[in-house]
Amino acid sequence: CELFSMYSELFSVYYELFILIKYVDDHQEEYVQTLREWVAVESDSSDVTKRAELYRMMDMVGEKLRKMGGKVELVDIGEEQLPDGSSLALPKVVTAQFGSDVNKPTVCVYGHVDVQPAQKEDGWATEPYNLTEINGNLYGRGASDNKAPVLAWIHAVEAFKALDMDLPVNVKYLIEGMEETGSNGLDAMIKSQKSTFFSDVDYIIISDCGWLSKRPALTYGTRGNCYFFAEVEGPKQDLHSGVYGGTVIEPMTDLIGILDTLISPSGTILIPGIRDAVAPFSDEEWKMYQDIEFDVESYREKIGVEQLMYNNKVELLAHRWRHPTVSIHGINGAFSAPGTKTVIPAKVTGKFSIRQVPDMDPAVVEKQVTDHLHSVFAKRKSPNKLKVKMIIGAKPWLADIKHSLYEAGKAAVKRVFNVDADMIREGGTIPIARTFQDVTEKSIIMLPIGGFDDGLHSQNEKMIFNVLNPGFMY
Amino acid sequence: CELFSMYSELFSVYYELFILIKYVDDHQEEYVQTLREWVAVESDSSDVTKRAELYRMMDMVGEKLRKMGGKVELVDIGEEQLPDGSSLALPKVVTAQFGSDVNKPTVCVYGHVDVQPAQKEDGWATEPYNLTEINGNLYGRGASDNKAPVLAWIHAVEAFKALDMDLPVNVKYLIEGMEETGSNGLDAMIKSQKSTFFSDVDYIIISDCGWLSKRPALTYGTRGNCYFFAEVEGPKQDLHSGVYGGTVIEPMTDLIGILDTLISPSGTILIPGIRDAVAPFSDEEWKMYQDIEFDVESYREKIGVEQLMYNNKVELLAHRWRHPTVSIHGINGAFSAPGTKTVIPAKVTGKFSIRQVPDMDPAVVEKQVTDHLHSVFAKRKSPNKLKVKMIIGAKPWLADIKHSLYEAGKAAVKRVFNVDADMIREGGTIPIARTFQDVTEKSIIMLPIGGFDDGLHSQNEKMIFNVLNPGFMY
Repeated sequence: CELFSMYSELFSVYYELFILIKYVDDHQEEYVQTLREWVAVESDSSDVTKRAELYRMMDMVGEKLRKMGGKVELVDIGEEQLPDGSSLALPKVVTAQFGSDVNKPTVCVYGHVDVQPAQKEDGWATEPYNLTEINGNLYGRGASDNKAPVLAWIHAVEAFKALDMDLPVNVKYLIEGMEETGSNGLDAMIKSQKSTFFSDVDYIIISDCGWLSKRPALTYGTRGNCYFFAEVEGPKQDLHSGVYGGTVIEPMTDLIGILDTLISPSGTILIPGIRDAVAPFSDEEWKMYQDIEFDVESYREKIGVEQLMYNNKVELLAHRWRHPTVSIHGINGAFSAPGTKTVIPAKVTGKFSIRQVPDMDPAVVEKQVTDHLHSVFAKRKSPNKLKVKMIIGAKPWLADIKHSLYEAGKAAVKRVFNVDADMIREGGTIPIARTFQDVTEKSIIMLPIGGFDDGLHSQNEKMIFNVLNPGFMY
Repeated sequence: CELFSMYSELFSVYYELFILIKYVDDHQEEYVQTLREWVAVESDSSDVTKRAELYRMMDMVGEKLRKMGGKVELVDIGEEQLPDGSSLALPKVVTAQFGSDVNKPTVCVYGHVDVQPAQKEDGWATEPYNLTEINGNLYGRGASDNKAPVLAWIHAVEAFKALDMDLPVNVKYLIEGMEETGSNGLDAMIKSQKSTFFSDVDYIIISDCGWLSKRPALTYGTRGNCYFFAEVEGPKQDLHSGVYGGTVIEPMTDLIGILDTLISPSGTILIPGIRDAVAPFSDEEWKMYQDIEFDVESYREKIGVEQLMYNNKVELLAHRWRHPTVSIHGINGAFSAPGTKTVIPAKVTGKFSIRQVPDMDPAVVEKQVTDHLHSVFAKRKSPNKLKVKMIIGAKPWLADIKHSLYEAGKAAVKRVFNVDADMIREGGTIPIARTFQDVTEKSIIMLPIGGFDDGLHSQNEKMIFNVLNPGFMY
């Protein structure tokens, strides 16, 4: 009798699982269609002229969750100040709740639906805002970062609701629209809802990252991001380089000169003091890195360079995840189009960022960078004016991989994929992870859904159509 | 009787002049309207997507001259090769002829009707392609460079024709549409028409330049322009700076590094050998420069910088006109928009130009620059690829200011303005002057019509509405 009851329970669990998986498979086209509608919204949070699209995106998220029967709120998080002195409403944050059973744990899924800029001319093979399937991949801006993962978590709950199945946990959602530009307004919102929305949350899940290889992974750390604008201003307006060239010290010459002092040809950061705070690389870490599934040669091939900055796996991963780096993104105000404009740009803004790691502090980085640039600029004795400003100062994040949440994550990966998850870090920044940790004091896990070659922030971003072979789990 | 006949002739000359001036004054609004129609055409020759506009512009020029009764031809000058391997028809060159009296000298007016790029967002106070009058100035892209001067020469002949007056000289026009990008195809056309269109031309007039001050001027020299693209290519596509930063040598770091070796903070060109060919600055030149009307302080104020590269008039003018200089115009392929895109650009092209002077040779400059950049790039030991290409190689031009054409020019300025013309040079490049000189062996004069503060190639380009007080000549 005991045996019968056990088998019966097991059967019921597996039957429920079977029904659930069948439902998901049967609704695949619908899921893709929803993703297509979401990708079609140009929710580029870095471009203020696209703000209306971003508002519309948040409304669509709210509507989707409301239709599923969730308790949905669109939370006003205030305004942002634009450089011209005007202000602009931030996109509302969507919160939703499914279930409030005090006997169940409560899981909160965080995600974002804003995207990086994208234009066909940047080198996309397809229209970036028109989700296009090619060879089992779905191409579109935001497909992987982060619209499909957000929808995956939403559709999971939707399946339970549609089948009238009991959710094993209470589920909450927190979906924002400013992640790509530093989650403006979200920190304050999280702080203000610490004792309301977050009071019954036990665990926070973030799927705004990707696997490292074809092996499933759990992510336990991210780098921070200090994004700088260095503006050099000279003449009142752009000048003809023939008519005026040779009579003015050009802002571009100054800007190029100071940007050239940030990093050595081999990749060493040259800003004094900046590497002092970096946590030492322990032997234990070294060993762990060695076990990670990662092929340096195929990484090199995928990127398409003749040589990487480091040739061995451990050093390369360490410089990707737990050492700081400087990237110069571009210059605003200079001539950037095709053709041969003969202009002396009057005001140019160099944009670069430093990915910082534990135990660096953004406030200290800001001072080190600002001091350094003003010091090298002063040596030039230029009549032009330099302004240095840190636009984003997002902290790194690091979790304890021995926490029960990671144990649960490892077990889940093992059950679904039948392999051990790689324990990885993320070179990119998910600033909100750090905020969740600092403010709510809840445990956080990053559970990547995006593939390892999704091209985040790049041309031809995509989401794989089927992470799993459809037959895999039957 | 002799006295009577003399007075009568004088009267008739002055009467004709009076009638002519009155006609011009009466048709002022019409002239502005034509300029408005021409400025409305976005004949930006550097942007291949605007090519249809350029074709339309050339048709309008031909039509205008045809209506005046000229013998007009639209000369096919072939195609240009685009970087992607395709080809595109060059805008036709318009030639026209008014009069063929063998007893009169023949004057050929050269001009161009293509323009530099312009967008309202660049910082224009008005729509750049909508000619707008503000305080006696007509603002619009191409207003001064070179549409209004071309129209001035056209309307001069039109007045004679409308009044049925005999032209004192035969007049020819040569109007092109590729000047702003290096007059592609025009050299070959001039060479091929040396013994046809140019066979009876005695003098060539170019009004594609401006006065130096409020004092009328004649221009006797221009600098050349060697425009370079330095392309650094690394990864196959743009990368996320968080995900990949620290593992690849970034093309932007390399490009910034090599661009920083072109020019010193104080403006000295650092490319080895490049200044060796510069003609020495003679004492005679020094004296002539000292007599030129030019106020360094108001030049500084106009540009709006705290300090110029040189503080005394002679040195400043010399570095503007007869010494070479390097300007870095911008970077194509990097992030150039507002906002905070976290990208590692995969392929970036630095654009810079060297204004070269007698006796520098573009072919030598090309080799010096290419060798230098490859040499500094090689020292970086970067895995990225560098390509250096000279896109424009336009020679400088220098006329003999003692030639009768300049004597005639001086006399004309004296008669109309009652002052001695300043003898000036042009920092910019009018490559065609050099070609005319080399190919046709005719005498050339540059007679500026544009004002000294027209803002060529810049935001808010304009043409003064009335160079002369309308009452001045009566």
